[in-house]
Amino acid sequence: MHFAEALPLQSGASIRAYDLAYETYGTLNADKSNAVLICHALNASHHVAGVYLDEAGRVKDKSEGWWSTMIGPGKPVDTNQFFVIGVNNLGSCFGSTGPMQINPDSHEIYGADFPVVTVQDWVSAQARLLDALGIETLAAVMGGSLGGMQALAWTLQYPERVRHAVVVASAPNLTAENIAFNEVARRAIVTDPDFHGGHFYRHDVLPKRGLRIARMIGHITYLSDDVMNEKFGRQLQGGADIKFSTQEVEFEIESYLRYQGDKFAEYFDANTYLLITRALDYFDPASTSGGDLSRALTKASASFLLVSFTTDWRFAPARSREIVKALLDNQRDVSYAEIDAPHGHDAFLLDDPRYLGVVRSYFKSKVAV
Amino acid sequence: MHFAEALPLQSGASIRAYDLAYETYGTLNADKSNAVLICHALNASHHVAGVYLDEAGRVKDKSEGWWSTMIGPGKPVDTNQFFVIGVNNLGSCFGSTGPMQINPDSHEIYGADFPVVTVQDWVSAQARLLDALGIETLAAVMGGSLGGMQALAWTLQYPERVRHAVVVASAPNLTAENIAFNEVARRAIVTDPDFHGGHFYRHDVLPKRGLRIARMIGHITYLSDDVMNEKFGRQLQGGADIKFSTQEVEFEIESYLRYQGDKFAEYFDANTYLLITRALDYFDPASTSGGDLSRALTKASASFLLVSFTTDWRFAPARSREIVKALLDNQRDVSYAEIDAPHGHDAFLLDDPRYLGVVRSYFKSKVAV
Repeated sequence: MHFAEALPLQSGASIRAYDLAYETYGTLNADKSNAVLICHALNASHHVAGVYLDEAGRVKDKSEGWWSTMIGPGKPVDTNQFFVIGVNNLGSCFGSTGPMQINPDSHEIYGADFPVVTVQDWVSAQARLLDALGIETLAAVMGGSLGGMQALAWTLQYPERVRHAVVVASAPNLTAENIAFNEVARRAIVTDPDFHGGHFYRHDVLPKRGLRIARMIGHITYLSDDVMNEKFGRQLQGGADIKFSTQEVEFEIESYLRYQGDKFAEYFDANTYLLITRALDYFDPASTSGGDLSRALTKASASFLLVSFTTDWRFAPARSREIVKALLDNQRDVSYAEIDAPHGHDAFLLDDPRYLGVVRSYFKSKVAV
Repeated sequence: MHFAEALPLQSGASIRAYDLAYETYGTLNADKSNAVLICHALNASHHVAGVYLDEAGRVKDKSEGWWSTMIGPGKPVDTNQFFVIGVNNLGSCFGSTGPMQINPDSHEIYGADFPVVTVQDWVSAQARLLDALGIETLAAVMGGSLGGMQALAWTLQYPERVRHAVVVASAPNLTAENIAFNEVARRAIVTDPDFHGGHFYRHDVLPKRGLRIARMIGHITYLSDDVMNEKFGRQLQGGADIKFSTQEVEFEIESYLRYQGDKFAEYFDANTYLLITRALDYFDPASTSGGDLSRALTKASASFLLVSFTTDWRFAPARSREIVKALLDNQRDVSYAEIDAPHGHDAFLLDDPRYLGVVRSYFKSKVAV
């Protein structure tokens, strides 16, 4: 969807004209009351469910939407009932306007000149998409991690347009440790000689070294210590003997991390990484209420489902409980499930029957129109 | 101390001749029964206590030994009573033979050709130093973190030469997550274009970018989430307004980490970083007993003090308790203190009265000769 009207940003800058890549699943009902907006986290996109077909009509390899366990016909968010919208955020690298595209002002690739966008800006852009689709009110807005922050922001920016908010494995803001991990990842990218101050496109190189390190750090924080020990432990790669090498892979966990880093560096944009981690850092709805989250959430009128996972140390259950408490302080309708799952932060993307069951029940009993 | 005889290493390689930098504090008694060996962790040295003086006899700035809270006249490890030895490990960069020095075989700087050394090798080298000093039996061997692993290894390699082992904030081996953090740090160094496969000395450059990232990652794991929130929280650097920048410092925690990274990259050797993190990865005394730590510790005959810190998530109390349990399984004499401290892994270097009190009591009542 093209938007010709400039979008003013929280920073004071604006984006003159922009595109948003989006997908929809299911059918919008007559009174347009069954729309569910899905917000994505760091490295995901608008492709939340379903698969892509090639020209011969065959399912493309690895083309499954990133939340296919959650969304689809008969799934917890049932596309036989709901009209689901996936949208790629501004500044991302999967089709919406971002740093890899042409700046209409300079006629050059944005690169590091792409303006800093915030969760608030994303929500503003998403609201315009809904306007264009003729949807006034969302049955629900939903997301995990950074996506959950967007869902929460929706209830504050457009309280009258959201009936339900489903906030999974999220937090009311980042801790110092969360920011620290983001910063190390950013420094790895920015100090990669191939980064060229963010204008690497001009030099026909990619700061892959930095992206690899960033992704490896990320992956450590997505998994729990327990699941890492269970999956990899101290297992050596390819045999029982150690090689006594500082640079070769010795342990399975090293091989896994290097693989994840390599894969990521092939498809993800370095400037997008910086932008999205900064959006995470900046998100802090309580900051306008002197740090008082309860006061900040007074504006929200939606009903809420919050879900957290016991072994998530990136966004620990205690962070979700802060949101639950602030909502209860405002006598809001809030359901909360703390899922005993071993997988850490990643659990929000996995096929956990208790987790999916909770969301299914919520949509069936509360969101259903 | 120069050692002319080659040291055979666990890897099968050997070091032809080598020096060990060491310092001693206090006086060795007549029957040589009051020696305490201090083993260091990743970035420390033989300079465990006291200060250095300049030519005019003035105390040099920042010349305090890294464990000065613990060791000195009247301190928990009282140098009026004990003869304390600090030794810099092989492969380190503070005076002992390491990658920055000349390989006597090639007459070139070792660089990446320095052999991979293990905790076992360090202990062997330390034992030779004791031989040279005429010390048969240690009153105690003591260390924190990786230093604690060396203390534990001493009780297995030379059980008859150790009366007491003091193992602080340590673990019987690294978890997958611990290895993962080491590996990301190593990849940051190795993929720095200035690393040149470990032979950067020949190119007159230093892989500072990689060292900075490695140190930033390290620092995150040394601190607890709580102490980071308390010290830095979400505080912005220099004012209340955010700059909307992905590359400039916004938060205090970013400034702190960058400073730590910069400082470290000025003095620490990149090859040493790789070697020492690998020694950490490899340490696993239970591996020769099919993973059975209790069986592995049968060899140990020393008395033990183990100390852990509640908020240490790098080497959590549960890891110390594994050692305690394995020692108790062998009916060994073991004292264990779990200190309720907010500082995370770093607590073992800090001035915590309960922690220092426990060590003081142990040395007074148990180690004293």
